[in-house]
Amino acid sequence: MINVGVIGVGTVGTSVVKILEQNKTMITARAGDEIRVKTGVVRNLNKKRDLNIALCNDPYSVVNDPEIDIVVELMGGVDEAFEVVKSALKNGKAVVTANKALLAYHRYELQEMAKDIPFEYEASVAGGIPIINALRDGLSANHIQSIQGIMNGTCNYMMTKMMNEGVAFDAILKEAQELGYAEADPTFDIGGFDAAHKLLILGSIAYGIDAKPEEILIEGIEHVTQEDIAFAREFGYVIKLLGIAKKEGDEVEMRVHACLIRKDAMIAKIDGVMNGVSVVGDKVGETLYYGPGAGGDATASAVVANIIDIVRSGKRAPMLGFDKPLERGLKLKDKNAIVSKYYLRLKVEDKPGVLAKIAALFGDHNISVETMLQRPVDGSYANLLFATHEAKEGDIQRVITALETLDFVAAKPVMIRIV
Amino acid sequence: MINVGVIGVGTVGTSVVKILEQNKTMITARAGDEIRVKTGVVRNLNKKRDLNIALCNDPYSVVNDPEIDIVVELMGGVDEAFEVVKSALKNGKAVVTANKALLAYHRYELQEMAKDIPFEYEASVAGGIPIINALRDGLSANHIQSIQGIMNGTCNYMMTKMMNEGVAFDAILKEAQELGYAEADPTFDIGGFDAAHKLLILGSIAYGIDAKPEEILIEGIEHVTQEDIAFAREFGYVIKLLGIAKKEGDEVEMRVHACLIRKDAMIAKIDGVMNGVSVVGDKVGETLYYGPGAGGDATASAVVANIIDIVRSGKRAPMLGFDKPLERGLKLKDKNAIVSKYYLRLKVEDKPGVLAKIAALFGDHNISVETMLQRPVDGSYANLLFATHEAKEGDIQRVITALETLDFVAAKPVMIRIV
Repeated sequence: MINVGVIGVGTVGTSVVKILEQNKTMITARAGDEIRVKTGVVRNLNKKRDLNIALCNDPYSVVNDPEIDIVVELMGGVDEAFEVVKSALKNGKAVVTANKALLAYHRYELQEMAKDIPFEYEASVAGGIPIINALRDGLSANHIQSIQGIMNGTCNYMMTKMMNEGVAFDAILKEAQELGYAEADPTFDIGGFDAAHKLLILGSIAYGIDAKPEEILIEGIEHVTQEDIAFAREFGYVIKLLGIAKKEGDEVEMRVHACLIRKDAMIAKIDGVMNGVSVVGDKVGETLYYGPGAGGDATASAVVANIIDIVRSGKRAPMLGFDKPLERGLKLKDKNAIVSKYYLRLKVEDKPGVLAKIAALFGDHNISVETMLQRPVDGSYANLLFATHEAKEGDIQRVITALETLDFVAAKPVMIRIV
Repeated sequence: MINVGVIGVGTVGTSVVKILEQNKTMITARAGDEIRVKTGVVRNLNKKRDLNIALCNDPYSVVNDPEIDIVVELMGGVDEAFEVVKSALKNGKAVVTANKALLAYHRYELQEMAKDIPFEYEASVAGGIPIINALRDGLSANHIQSIQGIMNGTCNYMMTKMMNEGVAFDAILKEAQELGYAEADPTFDIGGFDAAHKLLILGSIAYGIDAKPEEILIEGIEHVTQEDIAFAREFGYVIKLLGIAKKEGDEVEMRVHACLIRKDAMIAKIDGVMNGVSVVGDKVGETLYYGPGAGGDATASAVVANIIDIVRSGKRAPMLGFDKPLERGLKLKDKNAIVSKYYLRLKVEDKPGVLAKIAALFGDHNISVETMLQRPVDGSYANLLFATHEAKEGDIQRVITALETLDFVAAKPVMIRIV
């Protein structure tokens, strides 16, 4: 049994507690040990919470609890969090954090202290996307040539709305605040500082650069107007806030600012609140990682993955992740029971009654049509193009076989599934 | 010193040997030990190769060599590879393979044999994209709801060309063969079998499903014509070959076939020979992984990452990947030395001589203009929009400061960098 203390039980902390509970069987199988949250630390003990864990309001009671194995730091801020995490490490406790500001300022001191103790921080960059994992492990054979990241959902939401809907900056900001995508004081997001903290973390993993936020170029998106958007559109660009780390000779550029990006670049296609990080390695070329950069469950997904990783470190995880097939009671679905929408193309003789007969055949096989198009082919033939509502694979296969036998069907029917 | 034997020194094997040599310093730092290829196994010893390693033509001389720690299996095929890998595991050697066919048929037997021995296979699915890593570790807190993958570059190249350029299937296939993107016998790729092997591997990691290729729905792209493409375009779809694994209740669908996909879905945006895998987790939501699915260096990037991972397993890797900042001699570049292209927007009085003065100022600061647009604003003003050639950040900042002092410049100049 592994005991976890969660310091800061807000949106992300609550999700961490709930995921460990809701996905317990699977997580135990993957971690090779049972994981439970022993204590949660909150500022306000009087607030009602829907959680089955013990609560206290003193981080040090968790950090000094000899039963706690892993401390999850989700309190935010720099100075107090640094003191708490240092105490946890001094007490030999593994640490998981989502605190990008803490790492932007103190990551090398923490690395020095965590030499023999697991310290993980996947959730600190791009929320649920396992980008730290990819950069540190998956691409470990590569010299990293560049990183370009959309790492702030607020900015990306605003720029996407400005590009797609032509709404002005102030109106979008107000809307983003109402939707909860932007803070009441949005400076930290729209000024580029949040993205800069994340970029500094990635820059350390890729290049070992120990820079502080003050040392790198940081600009936001406040100055972007509809005139700039119009120019971008006219010349085939989109505008986005990017964090960029790039090696040139023995120097590394690190910068956060709004960018005009060619609209066919993969990173230009990442819209709305989503995050994405493009990494170019000298051997692999460009890879890109896309997903939700914020939100309680998405961020907690990364925190819990780190907890699992710490629990199973040193043990050999099964090669395929699970010990035995079907361990979770899952079985392969029969092909014919698969449900999908279908596109069908039929070349038929162009004469009266054909469509009625096909429609009747569809009805007999439980297939209903959503869209239909008829196009003439070669004078006396027509192409009938159907998109169906959901149907069973077995029914579709039977109807195709039946269609093939009809004398007015002039070629083998073509079927493509719609997802 | 860790000794590696590479069985199969073709395109990928050659890249593995070269990456271990070219990126040696960094790889040693990351792995915590020196890695060298002791022996390569080839079929034809007479063929001239540009490699500094000992060669032989007997896989078993590597598998039985007591000095070899890690066997890299790149020989391909199922039966012989299975025998060789089994012998390696029996001899206690860690195994790294890129062989998807081997895993499609024998992954559970291999897992059983590899209980106490590292066995890694990142390169077997989607080449250089660390998707196994993401699915097994990064998303380990999640029940996987679905996987949708573009996992065959040949098919994706052909479908992209058909969609974008309106060329017919046979012509594109011929072109793909000439470019080396398709084999002389393309059935394995365009019939969906290659993608199916990869899907079965992902399906095991996500769901523990022990299915063989014969048990799942596999179709290719041979039946897709320009008529279908036209329909897709008209109704806002693209057509791609997808591998799909999806949980419905306690059943898992697994299928490979051409699909009509809404063109605004992220996976629909993956074009050409690139691969991409979308994974939906119950907690994280959708994440997507994009990159090169084939090619010697990209595939070898994944093989070498697995080797590094095996070498450092059990040791604690530094939290940030590197022990100390600047260990590799890299330093942060001065902000003002950063080179970029720039977009500038200037609101100026619309009167003669203004453009000439601005142009002269640009010249004085080493800034040359690539594109310029002038647009009237409010009668007596104009917006001048410039895209520059590459310039230094310091020069651009100085020119902006200088522009601000000019009496005909009516508002603070706006600058956005172009990437």
